[in-house]
Amino acid sequence: MINFETRPEEYKHWRLEIEGAVARLSMDVQEDETLNEGYKLKLNSYDLGVDIELADAVQRLRFEHPEVRVVLVTSLKPRIFCAGANIYMLGTSTHAFKVNFCKFTNETRCAIEDASAHSGQRYVAALNGTASGGGYELAIACEEIFLVDDGNSAVSLPEVPLLGVLPGTGGLTRLVDKRKIRRDRADVFSTLAEGLKGKRAKEWGLIDGYFPTSKFQESVNEHVQQLVKESGVQDQKGIRLNPLEVEVNADGREYRYVSLKLNREKRYADLTVRAPEGETPATIEEIEQLGDAYWPLRAYRELDDALLHLRMNELETGLVCLRTEGDGANVLKVDETLIKHKEHWLVREITLYMARVLRRLDLTAKSFFALIEPGSCFAGNLLELALSADRTYMLNSPDEEVSVATSEMNRGALPMSNGLTRLQSRFLATPEKVAEVFAHEGSFDTEEAEEAGLVTFAPDDLDWEDEVRVAIEERTSLSPDALTGMEASLRFAGPETLDTKIYGRLTAWQNWIFQRPNAVGPQGALTNYGKPTQAQFDYKRT
Amino acid sequence: MINFETRPEEYKHWRLEIEGAVARLSMDVQEDETLNEGYKLKLNSYDLGVDIELADAVQRLRFEHPEVRVVLVTSLKPRIFCAGANIYMLGTSTHAFKVNFCKFTNETRCAIEDASAHSGQRYVAALNGTASGGGYELAIACEEIFLVDDGNSAVSLPEVPLLGVLPGTGGLTRLVDKRKIRRDRADVFSTLAEGLKGKRAKEWGLIDGYFPTSKFQESVNEHVQQLVKESGVQDQKGIRLNPLEVEVNADGREYRYVSLKLNREKRYADLTVRAPEGETPATIEEIEQLGDAYWPLRAYRELDDALLHLRMNELETGLVCLRTEGDGANVLKVDETLIKHKEHWLVREITLYMARVLRRLDLTAKSFFALIEPGSCFAGNLLELALSADRTYMLNSPDEEVSVATSEMNRGALPMSNGLTRLQSRFLATPEKVAEVFAHEGSFDTEEAEEAGLVTFAPDDLDWEDEVRVAIEERTSLSPDALTGMEASLRFAGPETLDTKIYGRLTAWQNWIFQRPNAVGPQGALTNYGKPTQAQFDYKRT
Repeated sequence: MINFETRPEEYKHWRLEIEGAVARLSMDVQEDETLNEGYKLKLNSYDLGVDIELADAVQRLRFEHPEVRVVLVTSLKPRIFCAGANIYMLGTSTHAFKVNFCKFTNETRCAIEDASAHSGQRYVAALNGTASGGGYELAIACEEIFLVDDGNSAVSLPEVPLLGVLPGTGGLTRLVDKRKIRRDRADVFSTLAEGLKGKRAKEWGLIDGYFPTSKFQESVNEHVQQLVKESGVQDQKGIRLNPLEVEVNADGREYRYVSLKLNREKRYADLTVRAPEGETPATIEEIEQLGDAYWPLRAYRELDDALLHLRMNELETGLVCLRTEGDGANVLKVDETLIKHKEHWLVREITLYMARVLRRLDLTAKSFFALIEPGSCFAGNLLELALSADRTYMLNSPDEEVSVATSEMNRGALPMSNGLTRLQSRFLATPEKVAEVFAHEGSFDTEEAEEAGLVTFAPDDLDWEDEVRVAIEERTSLSPDALTGMEASLRFAGPETLDTKIYGRLTAWQNWIFQRPNAVGPQGALTNYGKPTQAQFDYKRT
Repeated sequence: MINFETRPEEYKHWRLEIEGAVARLSMDVQEDETLNEGYKLKLNSYDLGVDIELADAVQRLRFEHPEVRVVLVTSLKPRIFCAGANIYMLGTSTHAFKVNFCKFTNETRCAIEDASAHSGQRYVAALNGTASGGGYELAIACEEIFLVDDGNSAVSLPEVPLLGVLPGTGGLTRLVDKRKIRRDRADVFSTLAEGLKGKRAKEWGLIDGYFPTSKFQESVNEHVQQLVKESGVQDQKGIRLNPLEVEVNADGREYRYVSLKLNREKRYADLTVRAPEGETPATIEEIEQLGDAYWPLRAYRELDDALLHLRMNELETGLVCLRTEGDGANVLKVDETLIKHKEHWLVREITLYMARVLRRLDLTAKSFFALIEPGSCFAGNLLELALSADRTYMLNSPDEEVSVATSEMNRGALPMSNGLTRLQSRFLATPEKVAEVFAHEGSFDTEEAEEAGLVTFAPDDLDWEDEVRVAIEERTSLSPDALTGMEASLRFAGPETLDTKIYGRLTAWQNWIFQRPNAVGPQGALTNYGKPTQAQFDYKRT
């Protein structure tokens, strides 16, 4: 079982040093400290374990070190920055693992860009040696890239020429869509196993600068100090992200505010988020004092962990029933506080994180049904769970109160990867309905919710149990692959962004290639990498 | 060998009737007239042969019947409109065939939308019976959809529940991006094998109207007459599209203006387009008189045919070297005429068609290198060939004249699927370069072209032969699958449109699923369709 929690004191592959406004995040992969057996992490190549630490560092920097303005990403290995995802790990992994591994690493790189864009923590890649494949893809997720000019070090994407797969961790998309490299040059670069060194790499826009070995550290540091100066001093004091207290049992995971209950034989899970109880804090001082115990931060960290667990450790669970429990009024009070203090760094970070967790949900290759019953609290930020679901069932009961409600948080604080709110994505044909939903006074009972277009089905007491049971049975009987492709197409209507292009177009092609005999068959390039035998291709183009 | 040329007199599966401003395009698939053996085309299901006729009809309507304002797409079979792509055909096809078949059918549907949008020929689907799968996908490519309300007929996308694949001929994308169906309803609809009938289908936005059997024809006709009235009378007289005269030999195809020479053992082809010779017409009268012999129409029809031939009949050809021959001044004269008369229907149609052919090239899963040598004429519309290539090599010779040139046609008349010109796509990072290119006086010699960013490499006489040879050898040695994924990612930087979402996101997922054992393995849903055995899924979600 893969565990997604870690902390700097436990890092094996990264060193995180903070010096005032500058964080130095240094890769120093220990080749024997692998997540699985059968490969060695040579030349700063990475497996999921390495990336879990990176994701943790990126997250902690935002919460624990808000004073940091520049994150310098570099390596402690001489002459090598990072050789990318470990090929032997990929070669020995199942298809499902490869796909989920790539998705997680993509999310980590998008989180780096999110920090640069929204938290004022600018990432600078200081390539003290060659960055190849996933190594360059990590660099290209940073705002700026500097390469040592030692006559040897290069940036490269050798996946196509050496491995018969794609630079699928955002590489191809970021080349032409982020750095806007001319497509013919991107073509040459992506087929050139040895890559490009300083001068040519700069000329083509692959890096932002290069310095000779003797001046590399000094020049990069100067530039970093310049960036710090530009961004001004931030004297915020971070909060600590303590380990989640999770009780793991045979059928699931119990957190403080989240429960994951697995119905393995039926291949679905119940994922319940509970509202805060009692008084919720209203001032910044109270929030800072609560720190990571503050409901939205804690509940969403738990939700995040549960989603990752479902993805990686519960592959056969095809459907997740999203449920909520507790007092919706308390959820709305939280939202009110988050909106009121949205300019405060900690509230901003909590909100940005909630948005990332919800995007993680959107991008999870499982079906989601939201079940809205008496005692549930799909209100404000938790309404996003219902809006992110593939379908929503809401009980229509004459006797019991069932309701959903919006808050200001549904207006744009929690955007999807396509840049729209979930309500905007829902009502592309009738954008006026978004305004109507917000114009509605108070909560929506079932009939109002149905009328407003917020729910898919509203069965009554008599039908509820059967209808939900049948829907679950039907969904879990369908081809899991067809569902993945269908959901990836239906969830992201409307505009496309760098992120959706990576998760849609690039990932879909990479997954296709990860199935192809030319990559993973006995004669495939991935299979034969590093062996004396040569790859043999079926040259039919499709 | 698949032949892409046909004409109404030879149609087996469609009937095309013109009555004034209304064309009636009726599907009546002959179940034994299949393109390959091993299946029967029951219930108006289709194979590539059926779609080649449809594509031909859509094309001819624009050139031969410009007076047509509304195209009524319907069926001659009672109670069935169209059952979609034939499952047994799909089940017995190779992966490469399936993928290329889907691409062609997608292009046909996009051509229908192109006709509605730009030629004022509005397509109306009159579903006189059930439209399922590809049948509904054909309907949804039309501007309006009317369904008979006979208590039985429905629209449906049963691919996911019945076949474990996607409605990949644009279906999923058009549901949420064109018709903007609410995503939860799209989810329900796409998992509901039996689909939805009149009332609910209308309520959910899947159709535009429904009429009882007794009033169906009459009501649809009334609506069609209304549309005709709105669009006003067009008294244009069409031109005839005669069969291409192509000389087929063992190593390629010779057309009037296009040569395709296959170097099969080296897995690449030379595709040459020749400029017009002598005087080119300058007036509408001369153009109308020339008809389909007019250079841009003829040359691009030949290019289109050659591309389709390469895709379907020459699967192992991985690289196409694009070449041109003749007097660039003549090409520029053609462009001048096309721009001057762009408001005339025939010139408009020719230009729209040139744009479609170039998009067909962009979407072809082969590598393209443009080779610019003495005697070539990459000018104006033919410059688009170089701009659409993955790379461009231009000889830098002190002795011989080598040049390229732009025309007004490069400014927007020939857009890519992403809505940009090829120059805009090329210079996303430096949009000012587009203006600089147009500000340049006269043609570009090699050094000017390189300086302007129009070519990738400019080897001199000494290096040219070796450099091109090595580039060809290297390209054709790479994994064809990795190249397909790479090119699909690098060619379409910038904005995404309905079209690019279909060819990128949806197609990539469909191709992935077409590889998965859950669809095509011995226990897969596609394999087991119609057999007494049931599909068995590996339920791991990826």
